[in-house]
Amino acid sequence: MTLTNRRAEPPPEGGQTDASDRSETGEALVVFTPSGRRGRFPRGSTVLEAARSLGVDIDSVCGGRSICGRCQVEIGEGRFAKHGIDSRAFHVTEATPGEARYADKRGLAAGRRLSCQSRIQGDLVIDVPPESQVHKQVIRKRAEVRAIEVDPEVKLHYVEVAEPDLHDPSGDLRRLEDALRQQWEIGDLSCDLRVLQTVQKALRDGDWKVTVAVREGERLLTVWPGFHDRIYGIAFDIGSTTIAAHLCDLETGEVLAAGGRMNPQIRFGEDLMSRVSYIMMNPGGEAALTAAVREALNALAGEVAAEAGIDLNNILEVTIVGNPIMHHLVLGIDPTELGGAPFALATDQALNIWASEIDLRINPDGRAYVLPCIAGHVGADTAAVILSETPYLSDELRLVVDVGTNAEIVLGNRQRLLACSSPTGPAFEGAQISCGQRAAPGAIERVRIDPETLEPRFRIIGGDLWSDEPGFYDMAVRTGVTGICGSGIIEVLAEMYLAGILTADGVIDGSLAARSPRIVPDGRTFSYVLQYADGLSTEKRITQTDVRAVQLAKAALYAGIRLLMDRMGVESVDRITLAGAFGSHIDVKYAMVLGLIPDCDLAKVGSAGNAAGTGARIALVNRSSRAEIERVVRQVEKVETAVEPKFQDHFVRAMAIPHKSDPFPNLRAAVTLPEPREAAGPEEGRRRRRRG
Amino acid sequence: MTLTNRRAEPPPEGGQTDASDRSETGEALVVFTPSGRRGRFPRGSTVLEAARSLGVDIDSVCGGRSICGRCQVEIGEGRFAKHGIDSRAFHVTEATPGEARYADKRGLAAGRRLSCQSRIQGDLVIDVPPESQVHKQVIRKRAEVRAIEVDPEVKLHYVEVAEPDLHDPSGDLRRLEDALRQQWEIGDLSCDLRVLQTVQKALRDGDWKVTVAVREGERLLTVWPGFHDRIYGIAFDIGSTTIAAHLCDLETGEVLAAGGRMNPQIRFGEDLMSRVSYIMMNPGGEAALTAAVREALNALAGEVAAEAGIDLNNILEVTIVGNPIMHHLVLGIDPTELGGAPFALATDQALNIWASEIDLRINPDGRAYVLPCIAGHVGADTAAVILSETPYLSDELRLVVDVGTNAEIVLGNRQRLLACSSPTGPAFEGAQISCGQRAAPGAIERVRIDPETLEPRFRIIGGDLWSDEPGFYDMAVRTGVTGICGSGIIEVLAEMYLAGILTADGVIDGSLAARSPRIVPDGRTFSYVLQYADGLSTEKRITQTDVRAVQLAKAALYAGIRLLMDRMGVESVDRITLAGAFGSHIDVKYAMVLGLIPDCDLAKVGSAGNAAGTGARIALVNRSSRAEIERVVRQVEKVETAVEPKFQDHFVRAMAIPHKSDPFPNLRAAVTLPEPREAAGPEEGRRRRRRG
Repeated sequence: MTLTNRRAEPPPEGGQTDASDRSETGEALVVFTPSGRRGRFPRGSTVLEAARSLGVDIDSVCGGRSICGRCQVEIGEGRFAKHGIDSRAFHVTEATPGEARYADKRGLAAGRRLSCQSRIQGDLVIDVPPESQVHKQVIRKRAEVRAIEVDPEVKLHYVEVAEPDLHDPSGDLRRLEDALRQQWEIGDLSCDLRVLQTVQKALRDGDWKVTVAVREGERLLTVWPGFHDRIYGIAFDIGSTTIAAHLCDLETGEVLAAGGRMNPQIRFGEDLMSRVSYIMMNPGGEAALTAAVREALNALAGEVAAEAGIDLNNILEVTIVGNPIMHHLVLGIDPTELGGAPFALATDQALNIWASEIDLRINPDGRAYVLPCIAGHVGADTAAVILSETPYLSDELRLVVDVGTNAEIVLGNRQRLLACSSPTGPAFEGAQISCGQRAAPGAIERVRIDPETLEPRFRIIGGDLWSDEPGFYDMAVRTGVTGICGSGIIEVLAEMYLAGILTADGVIDGSLAARSPRIVPDGRTFSYVLQYADGLSTEKRITQTDVRAVQLAKAALYAGIRLLMDRMGVESVDRITLAGAFGSHIDVKYAMVLGLIPDCDLAKVGSAGNAAGTGARIALVNRSSRAEIERVVRQVEKVETAVEPKFQDHFVRAMAIPHKSDPFPNLRAAVTLPEPREAAGPEEGRRRRRRG
Repeated sequence: MTLTNRRAEPPPEGGQTDASDRSETGEALVVFTPSGRRGRFPRGSTVLEAARSLGVDIDSVCGGRSICGRCQVEIGEGRFAKHGIDSRAFHVTEATPGEARYADKRGLAAGRRLSCQSRIQGDLVIDVPPESQVHKQVIRKRAEVRAIEVDPEVKLHYVEVAEPDLHDPSGDLRRLEDALRQQWEIGDLSCDLRVLQTVQKALRDGDWKVTVAVREGERLLTVWPGFHDRIYGIAFDIGSTTIAAHLCDLETGEVLAAGGRMNPQIRFGEDLMSRVSYIMMNPGGEAALTAAVREALNALAGEVAAEAGIDLNNILEVTIVGNPIMHHLVLGIDPTELGGAPFALATDQALNIWASEIDLRINPDGRAYVLPCIAGHVGADTAAVILSETPYLSDELRLVVDVGTNAEIVLGNRQRLLACSSPTGPAFEGAQISCGQRAAPGAIERVRIDPETLEPRFRIIGGDLWSDEPGFYDMAVRTGVTGICGSGIIEVLAEMYLAGILTADGVIDGSLAARSPRIVPDGRTFSYVLQYADGLSTEKRITQTDVRAVQLAKAALYAGIRLLMDRMGVESVDRITLAGAFGSHIDVKYAMVLGLIPDCDLAKVGSAGNAAGTGARIALVNRSSRAEIERVVRQVEKVETAVEPKFQDHFVRAMAIPHKSDPFPNLRAAVTLPEPREAAGPEEGRRRRRRG
């Protein structure tokens, strides 16, 4: 077997001039890549020992017993094979029986050795592959966010425990702790009663060899007989409408399965406030909402575990994010106080609880970490967005907006961070729009309007053809054209504005009825017919009321953003990130044309996807991120839009498209906006006549 | 009103020569008794402030708000009354309205003032009565044990919490914590989810004034609206046969109610080993034993709470002691490992758990502290005995013996402590004795035998007349003479030995049948008739088998003690303490005559009563005692009698009365022991004839 030889050159000697001398005394030079760390070691030392003494990052769960296979390395050129395992001629010992057993049982890729079994025989160059590093990283795709180091709160350790001795009596737990101290340098453990109830049987079933899960380096969570390989966690993002779950391998950080389902609390009220009202009207009713959301978490946990083919008992940790009301309800805290001023949270601190305390049926010793809330309207979901997007590490002034029924807005950089929530209402989610619907196959999501003919074309979710392309009918007939979703509404209104159908004041210009049959009177105002009734669809029209609903929503969002910009003392931001399902689907150009977000270089406006869910995942796989977000949220300046007098001013001026007074220079450079003018329509015409 | 004036002399000036100068500048000299601490304070300071700044020990739950009344003091001579409350003319301010309200509502004894409301107006001598001291002590009756400072894990603090502020949002819990930090200097609290679920309602119900229970100075246990006065704890002592409970006021340390009941596990087996056998025969059967003992604890808790007239919800802490098998079973740990060598405990460490984890229905946030076990046969009950009797603080070499079905034996002093358990069997508890019974009314507990006539007289439990005194029949007819209890067995055998009926080898001497009709043949041996059948009783006789059973028990006990003495390298001990119900009832002289315990100055042999229960109470009311006993038990040298070859030697030699080879000089000085001789009886006679 020949291997590509990336390290054919002898290892650089650096400042070490006595290499040959030492070599004669029995010491060998060992160089580790990619770290570049090097040192001399007595022949016969294991590669793992050499790595540890140099601080080179090699993983191990079994503590050098050729069981876990986590410590695999690749050793330089000139190998020969024995037991099907390569070893470099003369410079490293051959595979041990233990290593051969491991290779038989679990497979060992060509070129790989177990560093705990390979003893140094001469100078070596050893490559530590990423998956063997303790500090593995989860690489994220976007350039502006950091990679996340996999360093979960819960870690596995395999130990061999001394058997009880009649002459020196001590508890089984104490001998287990002694073994952990000696073999893993973990001391002063605490332990739940439940673990204590299982420890004797586990020790005996495992013939005094067990794998323990240790949390935060100090709490013994679970004891498995023998070697136990993998543990998992779930990151939950509880939205008012949907709940998302990501099942992660706590050793690699990898997402093994993801799932989502409707929040069953919807039966108690579509939006947050109607659920709080339900509780106010039905004292004690919060218990039903709490039970419903917990049951949904259990159902999701079951789904993702089944999808990944793992046992719920191997799930040892969950993280939870959600807005303040979801946060309180899943924790079994009555959210009534959040229903009215002063919107007092029960707690704004992160929580570390047993998963069983919120009825989660994962491992009975499993824990739940609940991210901190920030204020009565700015929840743990926003904390998670901040953790995912890290504006607090940025030199640029960043605006991060998570749009849902409420928009959570974060503005800042490494010097200062502001946050608020703005009541946008459900228009962006397709509710309160005459032909609106949730994002689902058949919903119109992209719209273009010809500025000459005023004829539209569109695309629907689930298809990649435009409505004026051949084959669209055949494609669309499967789902029909069912309505218009949030991103479609943004596009159709922005295109109507760009085509001159909609004035900057948000009026559908009735005078254009002369130019296009799609502009039709509709009571005292006009509507724009996006789609005539045909075999695919009933008629879909955009009414003046629809426009007003979106104007109200976008003005609320923009006013919240401006409030933070005022507080920060800035007139522009460097980068805008849209988070959440809506933010991921809209075309940022149209969002800016309509004036949902302030002016910015369009190249620096992007989407973060489900950033709250990502933040929950980060907190799941990286322990230090928890302290980090807890520290950051304490420094966030909270702005309460409801009591800021300037909010109303900003709101009124933001009703215009894109805005009454903001100039939007970047937008104007990229897109030709129509000149401001007045519209003519039945109502407006009458009013002008009365005035005249 | 005139008060006894113990402090009529002006306060001594000590080294303070500038008293008059300072006095002119508005400062007054204040002397506190009994501490003798003194200092000068600006006129207008409260007495409580002055005390605090001098480190004088004055209690307060309400933080100086004239609510709790804990800070009462007595102020020197020359008072006059206002609002019915005394204040010293000109030298202390009159009662405030708050103080008058307190006096109206809860009463204030004559001469008492609230130190938080009394402001210094001139030189004062102030007495802090014991019940106002933070470091109250529980005084114990016996000279050799220390008083216990009342310093429970759980303490109450009354706080006024800032209301939520829309402009500066923070969680209710954070504002509560801020208040505790500012008003009580308690920081970095953790808090259970259950508390979080109640905190908002409590704050609003209490109009932002609440009383919190804080455990270990760091865990928020419960929040009550308004002022909450008293919290309680229960010390449980779980014996194989009986379970005892003491309900204590956690503020004063006082025992408010005590109760006991049979351990319902008896239906699974009379003694420990038969219960372990039950579990071995019925896999999973430990759950039934666990449920039974937990239910008994709940029933007892209900009883003592009802007796004291308090709400179970105000019980915030319990402590638990028991032998290793009881310890494991109440914790829900399968005790099978304790049923055979090497007798491995699941844990030998103390436990701090939620009371709800072992199904105790006290306050849902209540905690349970389980004292540490020492070895597989030496349990948390022995740890409690050690804590109560403190041999580890003694210069004398102390022997502490807790006799039950097993005897737990502790030997040592401040240098060294040894412990073992010895399998005495149930003879000392009246079992395995033909006419034996548990200690109950009607049982013979005291016996005297006339050495001339060999006629016995006795007393029964529940009566104070001897059986040969007039009126005994009328007194005893209510209960009858039902059997003989543990202490009665010790006395009758010791008296039989002293009267010559029993030889030093433990043989009932049949040759005495000629002298007394009470010596009767009984198969191949003789018996002694203690009581003829009459209107009170069936015949009660002591058989040779009975004697053998007690000999086996006492030999096991003595052998265990000797083993520890060997290990310690001593031939005598300075002081012997007998603990447990049996140890409390036996006459120590007879215990020594029979050779249950080694020779010792009889004046230094005494009983400690239920020392295990007392240890549980100490751990309940004094937090530092927990760390103390945890530290001490780690230093105890455990001796396993089952594997000590010398145990058997000691056992065989200890079968003799009082002992085959130990000289018992102190005993011989106090009591005339019969000369060793051989007995004659049917069996012995035959054997001698065969040999001859």
